[in-house]
Amino acid sequence: MLDLIRSLVVENTTKIVLLSLDGLGGLPRPETGRSELETARLPNLSALATASACGLIRHVAPGITPGSGPGHLGLFGYDPLAYQVGRGVLEALGIEFDLRGGDVAARGNFCTVDGAGLITDRRAGRIATDVCVRLTERLRAIRLPGIEVMVEPVKEHRFVLVLRGAGLSGRLSETDPQALGKAPLPVRGLEPGAARAAELVNTFIAEAGRRLADAAPANMILLRGFDQLPELPRFPEVYGLRAAAIAAYPMYRGLAKLVGMDVLKTGGTYAEEIATLREHWQAYDFFFVHYKDTDKAGEDGDFDAKVQALERFDAFVPAIRELGPDVLIVSGDHSTPSVLAAHGWQPVPALVWSRYCGADPVTAFTERACAAGTLGLIPAHHLMSIVMANALRLTKFGA
Amino acid sequence: MLDLIRSLVVENTTKIVLLSLDGLGGLPRPETGRSELETARLPNLSALATASACGLIRHVAPGITPGSGPGHLGLFGYDPLAYQVGRGVLEALGIEFDLRGGDVAARGNFCTVDGAGLITDRRAGRIATDVCVRLTERLRAIRLPGIEVMVEPVKEHRFVLVLRGAGLSGRLSETDPQALGKAPLPVRGLEPGAARAAELVNTFIAEAGRRLADAAPANMILLRGFDQLPELPRFPEVYGLRAAAIAAYPMYRGLAKLVGMDVLKTGGTYAEEIATLREHWQAYDFFFVHYKDTDKAGEDGDFDAKVQALERFDAFVPAIRELGPDVLIVSGDHSTPSVLAAHGWQPVPALVWSRYCGADPVTAFTERACAAGTLGLIPAHHLMSIVMANALRLTKFGA
Repeated sequence: MLDLIRSLVVENTTKIVLLSLDGLGGLPRPETGRSELETARLPNLSALATASACGLIRHVAPGITPGSGPGHLGLFGYDPLAYQVGRGVLEALGIEFDLRGGDVAARGNFCTVDGAGLITDRRAGRIATDVCVRLTERLRAIRLPGIEVMVEPVKEHRFVLVLRGAGLSGRLSETDPQALGKAPLPVRGLEPGAARAAELVNTFIAEAGRRLADAAPANMILLRGFDQLPELPRFPEVYGLRAAAIAAYPMYRGLAKLVGMDVLKTGGTYAEEIATLREHWQAYDFFFVHYKDTDKAGEDGDFDAKVQALERFDAFVPAIRELGPDVLIVSGDHSTPSVLAAHGWQPVPALVWSRYCGADPVTAFTERACAAGTLGLIPAHHLMSIVMANALRLTKFGA
Repeated sequence: MLDLIRSLVVENTTKIVLLSLDGLGGLPRPETGRSELETARLPNLSALATASACGLIRHVAPGITPGSGPGHLGLFGYDPLAYQVGRGVLEALGIEFDLRGGDVAARGNFCTVDGAGLITDRRAGRIATDVCVRLTERLRAIRLPGIEVMVEPVKEHRFVLVLRGAGLSGRLSETDPQALGKAPLPVRGLEPGAARAAELVNTFIAEAGRRLADAAPANMILLRGFDQLPELPRFPEVYGLRAAAIAAYPMYRGLAKLVGMDVLKTGGTYAEEIATLREHWQAYDFFFVHYKDTDKAGEDGDFDAKVQALERFDAFVPAIRELGPDVLIVSGDHSTPSVLAAHGWQPVPALVWSRYCGADPVTAFTERACAAGTLGLIPAHHLMSIVMANALRLTKFGA
């Protein structure tokens, strides 16, 4: 599909804005039977939906709950099942670590082991982040022959391990046995060339055990999700768009960088993100703008907070429309229903506004209303070709 | 999918009529917010939609604007991405040239070159068709060793070149550099066995230059879209249907012939097409009937003319229903919104009527109404299996 799009791209001066509301979709609150989107007062989104083509998108496959990585790759037009990004790489992106091609990244947990080396707590009692920072200092001091070792704290018991050196493979098995009372597993190479990397990681783990022996409850480590940077088609080249990402959170900046977008410096609030959008309006054809509050409230299981986050977003819509985008998309990377207090598999409302988006019966931007829209229920990675068409940036296929 | 259908086909005496309205789908006129279909008075189509299963179809992929070739292949049940037909072949079909297996066809343009052989007009000032006819006579006189050369005028600056001979390859590069101030490119073979065909075409081009030297502005040629007839599964064999095509325009007759339908002789008006349908009613199981006026009006950007074309079509619906088809389908090969004055990517309304088509909430045949239909939003090439099922011509899959 990306090859098809690439072969049909034509130049134009149209501008595209993709507003991604993290965890946008929700579920009805049992007491009212209305979802967060159906409860919130969203006059600007309703007006926009009335003038837009609406639908529902799903990011991975029916019933599959997407992580933020696959969710955003889908929005960017990449089939998340065809372009998989390992958890180690996502964790590194999430702290904006400057991961390079060939680096092997893994997700690390501090854990607790007993005298026999058996795991008694897989998360080391969720140690405070400052303890994590101090203990990663100890791990950083570990030296391995011929390669560079980098260890970065993330949050609580979590850290990132990165190995840098020529010829390393990231096809390595995990050490977390996913159960208490067992010893961490040794790392095994999962492809012929991976034996050396496996040996290096096992050496690192043994040395980490020695250096953490007195640091209970964080007296051992578990490593998961080994991977290297995937080779993704570059977004600006596939679509012929000068593309910029505006996101306050590092994970989303990292994902945008992964596909080759320019990541713009911005502040921590949505108002600052919109100011950044305005400031760079002339320099780009495509803007990905990320809104985090919806997901945060959903993850907290706070229905009212999610309603308020939606209403705060709604108030920004007029300022964005005033910039005069030729195509405006509102959607998200996955659902985060407050009643689940977690990511969900439910399809996510999407709207595409342009002069050419077509007649559509939908007059509200909700899960239920969008189900009757002319976009239908489509894979998220089909959205970008529709967006490109609305921007009059694709020529026709066949005579 | 075609293999699956073929394996499930059972005999029956049911009759199927596929009414293809070229460029059917539209967009709202900004002044009224209503599309062509929503503006037209279509009492017969509304009644039919009320009794039918409705939906939206897209012919190639989301956001991709189909040409007439891929659009109709989709309607006939062929995935247009799996069965690609080159532009040279489509151009030959468009003038009903009797293209045979192994023939290499290319789209030709007369163009203007300056004294240094650099292109100054890629379309030779769109010379009149009668000039084109006269100049193709000159090209026809060119002889190439061991093969037959055919040149047919199309319209204005356009013609078709066909090479006939054993062992020719159609995998050839184009000569149009797609820019002014450059010389036409030499043809290169794009597969190992294509060197001879490339050499023959280059000889033809050099000789064409000599014979056109005094014919400015049409003093050179450009060749594009080299291809050979693709091997398509034959429609009558896949579906077990005696299939006939009724179309006033040569392109659509050519497409129907390409998939093995019988092309019936008919007049230039839709009334004559319907008379042809009535006349041959007993002899066939499946009729593809093509209506061109909707596309013509859309391409002209004439909203009112498209509305009138729809209303004229609507008046024919009772006569078609009187024939008593068991399955009646109304749809199109692509959208041609008047506000775009060109083919569009928007999904196209579709209705399937039969005794067994099922309960459906749709009561009007419009883009907006069909979005809520029970057919959903589906690839056009999924329609034919639904049609076959409604004709009780498919047995069940598995015991």
